[in-house]
Amino acid sequence: MNDRIQNLRRRLEEPLLVSSPVNVRYLTGLVSSNAAVLVEPDRARLFTDFRYAEAARAVKGVELVELPRDLFARLAETLSGRIGFEAGHLTYARYETLAAGGLELVARRGLVEGLRAAKDEAELAAIRRGAAIANEIYERLAAERFVGRTERDLAWLIESSLHELGAQGLSFPVIVASGPTAALPHADPGERVIGEGETVIVDVGCVVEGYCSDCTRTFVTGELPEELARAYEVCLRAQEAGLTAVAPGADGVAVDRIARDVIDTAGLGERFGHGLGHGVGLEVHEQPWLNREFPSTLAPGNVVTVEPGIYLPGLGGVRIEDLVVVGVDGPEVLTTCTKELVTVH
Amino acid sequence: MNDRIQNLRRRLEEPLLVSSPVNVRYLTGLVSSNAAVLVEPDRARLFTDFRYAEAARAVKGVELVELPRDLFARLAETLSGRIGFEAGHLTYARYETLAAGGLELVARRGLVEGLRAAKDEAELAAIRRGAAIANEIYERLAAERFVGRTERDLAWLIESSLHELGAQGLSFPVIVASGPTAALPHADPGERVIGEGETVIVDVGCVVEGYCSDCTRTFVTGELPEELARAYEVCLRAQEAGLTAVAPGADGVAVDRIARDVIDTAGLGERFGHGLGHGVGLEVHEQPWLNREFPSTLAPGNVVTVEPGIYLPGLGGVRIEDLVVVGVDGPEVLTTCTKELVTVH
Repeated sequence: MNDRIQNLRRRLEEPLLVSSPVNVRYLTGLVSSNAAVLVEPDRARLFTDFRYAEAARAVKGVELVELPRDLFARLAETLSGRIGFEAGHLTYARYETLAAGGLELVARRGLVEGLRAAKDEAELAAIRRGAAIANEIYERLAAERFVGRTERDLAWLIESSLHELGAQGLSFPVIVASGPTAALPHADPGERVIGEGETVIVDVGCVVEGYCSDCTRTFVTGELPEELARAYEVCLRAQEAGLTAVAPGADGVAVDRIARDVIDTAGLGERFGHGLGHGVGLEVHEQPWLNREFPSTLAPGNVVTVEPGIYLPGLGGVRIEDLVVVGVDGPEVLTTCTKELVTVH
Repeated sequence: MNDRIQNLRRRLEEPLLVSSPVNVRYLTGLVSSNAAVLVEPDRARLFTDFRYAEAARAVKGVELVELPRDLFARLAETLSGRIGFEAGHLTYARYETLAAGGLELVARRGLVEGLRAAKDEAELAAIRRGAAIANEIYERLAAERFVGRTERDLAWLIESSLHELGAQGLSFPVIVASGPTAALPHADPGERVIGEGETVIVDVGCVVEGYCSDCTRTFVTGELPEELARAYEVCLRAQEAGLTAVAPGADGVAVDRIARDVIDTAGLGERFGHGLGHGVGLEVHEQPWLNREFPSTLAPGNVVTVEPGIYLPGLGGVRIEDLVVVGVDGPEVLTTCTKELVTVH
């Protein structure tokens, strides 16, 4: 029996058609861009097309149904009755396709995502391995030359090191953002040559056994303008305040608030426009959330980032991000590389 | 004035809310996971959150509106009247959010995707550069040792070479599938050590200026079992038959049919379970389609793959894929590396 499907089944009021590829992967192990699982009280069926059928045959505890590539048109023809669907994932077009088949459709949200938020030991082990790789990356970077190299060159050095250290891929494209570019929270590494007296934000995540890690450190290439030096100090205090608030039962909005207050008090609140953190697992952004917009309550086994940033347009930016397991005995910080400001040359 | 937005506007019966990140990028150049464009007769507004606002300020021909991260809840509050939306992209949950705001919503499909299918010269130039990189990769591979190396090791060699040759990223994770693994059309490179007398499918695409390329060649490590050798010969004939059918006005289902007939006639039809090809551009799978399920008509400036495959479970597989521009003077094959069976050691 598949425990994850069994856990999901207990939460259902009607059969659920799981169509998010990540949720399908969580329930079955199958990695596919075109698959769905229908979880019913007495059985679970896995639908996919020819391309994934061979891999799908290895999945235990489900009945495999191979369909043409246009899965949802066929599901509309073959399924009947009352069925829940993943409203946060299914497109309106697919909803219409299913509805045209006469199904009684019930919009459900976050059922599998809720299960995914609490990691089991095997999942935590994979995430810990990814975080250990990140730690090694930042230690190596501290010994690297930055000034005179392009962001893209450094990003590739990081990517090569990730591979060498056993990562199976990237959680997201490596971010190396220097000088004024560091004022863009989501910058792509470019041909900009890193200069002296700048901050360089390095945001790296890798994939181990399907699970993501995520870590950010900000390096400095020589003496900083006072505003940026102060921003780093404020950001670090905010980050540590946020960390101490991570505990089972904590409210994500409140944890965000605790870190944000530090930055607000320093008069830099306007310069911290994103949320404090997010869950990390099969996806690099998933439940639970530490921000003002999506309420979450932390629980043991959650894995979250704590990552305040301060961005000064035209000048530069700083961000410090740890990856943390929410534990009953306090937060377990996986990204143990130093958060002291590291000067590189 | 932004020509792409202007072209889109001419096709609209009501204002369109463009929410697919790729479509937003096509219209504005902005790369963002959380942005939308509302195209109205007399103006276009770009909505995004803090993280992308700095980059969005550089977009010409649109009014920038910075919103909190939960864009759609705010759009529901602020927009009114009759508005089209991208039914093939918008989730049912977001549809519900918008509908709750009292908007009169009209489901539209493929409007921007239809524009994207016909590439302009700048887009073709980027795709040609990507294809040229792929050609170089396959030439280098022909001189590499395969036997005794893992799939993962070869995949990394390819990834490193792509970077060195100027690619900005991968269109999709490199596929190196050897021996029985080659019977899985979408296999991840693993720790399998490549042996003698096997086929090795190498499917590679890279990104240049945001545009994808896509190419597959099948190598052989010594003498093949007769079934596989024959499969390669049949696959190549099918691929060339498909290529000759690529022309403006051609029906995608018919082009697929022409290649499929060759494989059917050889008695291997059951072993070619996927479509013949797909469009390639900002996405590696986009309009138009060459398969039995999604009707398309080819037009000048389309870029498509032609990629039959034959998969023999337990034994191995073959796939041969070219990237082709649909031209009025005939197909322009961008992937010019040899399709003769190349033996590696």
